[in-house]
Amino acid sequence: MTTGVRRRMGVEQRRDQLISVALGLFGRRSPEDVSIDEIAEAAGISRPLVYHYFPGKQSLYEAALRRAGEQLAALFVEPREGPLGARLLRVTHRFFDFVEDHGPGFTALMRGGPAAGSAAAGAMIDGVRQAAYEQITAHLGLARPGPRMELVVRSWISLAETTALLWLDGRQLARRELELQLVHDLAALAAVSAAYDEEMAEVLRRMLADEPADGPFGDLVGRLTALAPQPAAS
Amino acid sequence: MTTGVRRRMGVEQRRDQLISVALGLFGRRSPEDVSIDEIAEAAGISRPLVYHYFPGKQSLYEAALRRAGEQLAALFVEPREGPLGARLLRVTHRFFDFVEDHGPGFTALMRGGPAAGSAAAGAMIDGVRQAAYEQITAHLGLARPGPRMELVVRSWISLAETTALLWLDGRQLARRELELQLVHDLAALAAVSAAYDEEMAEVLRRMLADEPADGPFGDLVGRLTALAPQPAAS
Repeated sequence: MTTGVRRRMGVEQRRDQLISVALGLFGRRSPEDVSIDEIAEAAGISRPLVYHYFPGKQSLYEAALRRAGEQLAALFVEPREGPLGARLLRVTHRFFDFVEDHGPGFTALMRGGPAAGSAAAGAMIDGVRQAAYEQITAHLGLARPGPRMELVVRSWISLAETTALLWLDGRQLARRELELQLVHDLAALAAVSAAYDEEMAEVLRRMLADEPADGPFGDLVGRLTALAPQPAAS
Repeated sequence: MTTGVRRRMGVEQRRDQLISVALGLFGRRSPEDVSIDEIAEAAGISRPLVYHYFPGKQSLYEAALRRAGEQLAALFVEPREGPLGARLLRVTHRFFDFVEDHGPGFTALMRGGPAAGSAAAGAMIDGVRQAAYEQITAHLGLARPGPRMELVVRSWISLAETTALLWLDGRQLARRELELQLVHDLAALAAVSAAYDEEMAEVLRRMLADEPADGPFGDLVGRLTALAPQPAAS
């Protein structure tokens, strides 16, 4: 019976299944530590049959990377409704879900290990960053972001990567705290830029215009005002 | 005469010279585009003599990387005197000097190209990040930074890398503006964390305690207060 089921699987279906199985294994352990034998076993097929669909581990790893890239890029898609802070918090939460599910693979990829330091890995990372950038600038309502806004958004994307990597390395802080902090960090980076540039100040005013006082941005502004760091007079 | 000078160069001296020449070339162009012939020509020696000191381009590249790593790590050393903001601004300025001098090589290294995606490159990057982390936490007067402070400082180091890479890619914004912005970003990231954590609030208060009103931190607080983004009531 099992053999019958296997035989009925089409080529594309079988490739899809192998990619899913491989993505699961490459995500949960460092790609170097995953063998074709394990992938074959997890997929319930023979080792030669794996090679029938993929010439080797690297090509299967790259197919899994592309799949992961598509999944990651899709996480940033969020309806453009309601306050911005809440939207960004939902996106950040989904990003951490992904990172939690694929921890060791995410770390290996971002740290550029032997399997991960390839052109395919670089292309996947660049593609996801660009998708995230386009989604976030669209949420900010910016058709043509200026160089300062571009710097803020791209800086924030790298901050999300760094924060996730540091979280995975020991998990000393709660995920929820870091998700909220990241959303706050975007406002903070925009505010620093806005302090010296009128165009950015206008973008920031629009970002915060529809924020409820109890949303993530409203809460931060209230707390920062209460904190009120006063530098000593010179 | 030239030959005479060459012959008097000791092994260590010759290796040093080759590393310096290679670092210059690898910094100004993508390492893939630099040949051993060029390195030999720039050093004024024959191609076989280069191979006498280094078995191949990769080993010379890795030696150049180690040299660059030492130079970069040294940039973060700054006397612990005077206001913190001014100290960080000097460090950031020296970092941008380095980035400007080694632009294409820095980009190739950080983007993990074929030559750059090696274990030696990863070790160099990790070593520099750790040196920067230790220097900055020492300037903040923190012998044992908690996990929130560690996250802020390490996030800021990745922000410095991202900002430098984006600056190199088109140079749309002035270096000076970005150097100041980076120093501000550190205060902003610390402030976001301090808004939700009393220990971080204490660190932030100490960071700002000795800041003159016309220093980079004092100026920012003044401008942000003037900007005063007020979220709409819900």
